[in-house]
Amino acid sequence: MENSKHIVLAHGGGGALTRELITDVLVASLGRTAEALPDAAAVPGAEGLVFTTDSFVVKPLFFRGGDIGSLSVHGTVNDLAVSGAEPLALSMGLIIEEGFDIETLGRIVRSAASAASVSNVQIVTGDTKVVARGEADQLFVNTAGIGIRRIHPDPKSLQAGDHVLINGGIAEHGIAVMSEREGIAFETRVRSDAAPVWPFVKALIDAGIEPRVMRDPTRGGLAACCVELADDSGVTVELDEQAIPVRPETRAACDMLGLDPLNVANEGKIVVFVAEDCAELALDTLKKAPGGEHAALIGRVVPRKRVSCVMRTRFGGERIVEMPYGEDLPRIC
Amino acid sequence: MENSKHIVLAHGGGGALTRELITDVLVASLGRTAEALPDAAAVPGAEGLVFTTDSFVVKPLFFRGGDIGSLSVHGTVNDLAVSGAEPLALSMGLIIEEGFDIETLGRIVRSAASAASVSNVQIVTGDTKVVARGEADQLFVNTAGIGIRRIHPDPKSLQAGDHVLINGGIAEHGIAVMSEREGIAFETRVRSDAAPVWPFVKALIDAGIEPRVMRDPTRGGLAACCVELADDSGVTVELDEQAIPVRPETRAACDMLGLDPLNVANEGKIVVFVAEDCAELALDTLKKAPGGEHAALIGRVVPRKRVSCVMRTRFGGERIVEMPYGEDLPRIC
Repeated sequence: MENSKHIVLAHGGGGALTRELITDVLVASLGRTAEALPDAAAVPGAEGLVFTTDSFVVKPLFFRGGDIGSLSVHGTVNDLAVSGAEPLALSMGLIIEEGFDIETLGRIVRSAASAASVSNVQIVTGDTKVVARGEADQLFVNTAGIGIRRIHPDPKSLQAGDHVLINGGIAEHGIAVMSEREGIAFETRVRSDAAPVWPFVKALIDAGIEPRVMRDPTRGGLAACCVELADDSGVTVELDEQAIPVRPETRAACDMLGLDPLNVANEGKIVVFVAEDCAELALDTLKKAPGGEHAALIGRVVPRKRVSCVMRTRFGGERIVEMPYGEDLPRIC
Repeated sequence: MENSKHIVLAHGGGGALTRELITDVLVASLGRTAEALPDAAAVPGAEGLVFTTDSFVVKPLFFRGGDIGSLSVHGTVNDLAVSGAEPLALSMGLIIEEGFDIETLGRIVRSAASAASVSNVQIVTGDTKVVARGEADQLFVNTAGIGIRRIHPDPKSLQAGDHVLINGGIAEHGIAVMSEREGIAFETRVRSDAAPVWPFVKALIDAGIEPRVMRDPTRGGLAACCVELADDSGVTVELDEQAIPVRPETRAACDMLGLDPLNVANEGKIVVFVAEDCAELALDTLKKAPGGEHAALIGRVVPRKRVSCVMRTRFGGERIVEMPYGEDLPRIC
């Protein structure tokens, strides 16, 4: 916290500053270590259970491919899924600004219910708070989720030789939201990829594959995800730019907005790290799962180098992939 | 929703309009019935588990007797406790306004951790979002909680003859917050009663008592709690004004602020409805539990009358107790 004793937007960007805030302030204040406070946690006294929470402050509330309601369900269900847990139930807490249109609220909650039903989970409990005009920006949603652990991926278990897979094109959620916000939605057809990733996890489990680690590359994108995991395991992740699926329209919108697709949030993607000997089967499994036709092998794990993550560029060079600082994309989820 | 197609502050007040919003919009949009969406819910697929969520938008963040951190822990733990569940674990989601002081944030999280340790629960997972200056008012906290059900109180089970008990003086939380907000804190010594009620529930269970229903009378106060439960069971609750514990300083502050103590939020109180034959033991048990010295028998359940709740006044008259509309006390929790 050297640069600032006050919260800045980058503290919420999912990058380096978010990590610093969580480790140095929040986890420390709870008297815990960062690994003892994971995205999705075991529950002492309730064996096999996994518990997670996520707040959603996305702006605007509606974007191509989704809205804050569906997003808040997919996001939390996905935190469970990548921890190896089958989603069971969700809670939903609403913080609403005075003056918010009630019909729009109903539409958002219906969208959440419909997203929940796709994942076969129920929203079983809720809470509603209202604050005065100007004290919140329209609507914030929190969803917490409970799941049952099916497999035990371990974020510290990456080994040199492991392969890195993804289930489809990156950067679509962030670009859909930013296009809307920056008023360029009419120039692009990028839709948010917001969707549940549990079907992919289940397909892997059913195929007998136990990934070392899985992660949904949301805030901070694929870059933050790879750097963080590489650091946790003391290895380096080598990405292959040419192999990373990016739709042409997403790439065009990234160029227009001056964003690196590696840093842009996804909400229906899963990065899967597997041992080399099951990489082929895993890729095949992801490709065959509905929506997985663009799944790809995008890199591998190598012994620790000077940096956490590098990318072989399409021109044959090598580029350092850095943890994004976090200020580029506020309120993306 | 006749009067308004937009959210008004009263929608968040815990009174009639909150109930209308939940029933007509939220629950309906989820395709459920209100009873299928309780404050603390069973989790399909995880037997014995209870799941709850609560967002906290209290203003100011610090008040005599607590702060948003400790409140967010006690509040959620209490939702579990009154449903008959022993609290196990909490999640904590923070929505922070840009510019918020990081040291203050640490202080609030430490306060939450300390409140959690009093209840022997852990905050096992968390989430942090940041919004720009002016897009939220300082800090909002969501806590979701998981508990294990020990007894099965049933909100529809009240019967004529049942007795109504409370574990101490009412209206202290609301008055502590309002005193701070209205700048009259220097004139009153009222402290928030924010505290866990599980020790009271446990004492009752250990004494072999299974209350019909328990409720923590938060937003909307004792009035909302009694009216709601009376309606759910099709009975009438008769309160005895003289028996309801209100500290003199709380009463004085209520007078000063023009508030009826019956409508003011509590955060460490539990209203217990028991069959007549165990009322005496239940009262004795509450009184002997730490902090329960002012516990009292405050009323009884009678066959349904024209109204849901009446109160015998200290002057021998009878007064109708109405569900508060909800606009008096915004952002009280």
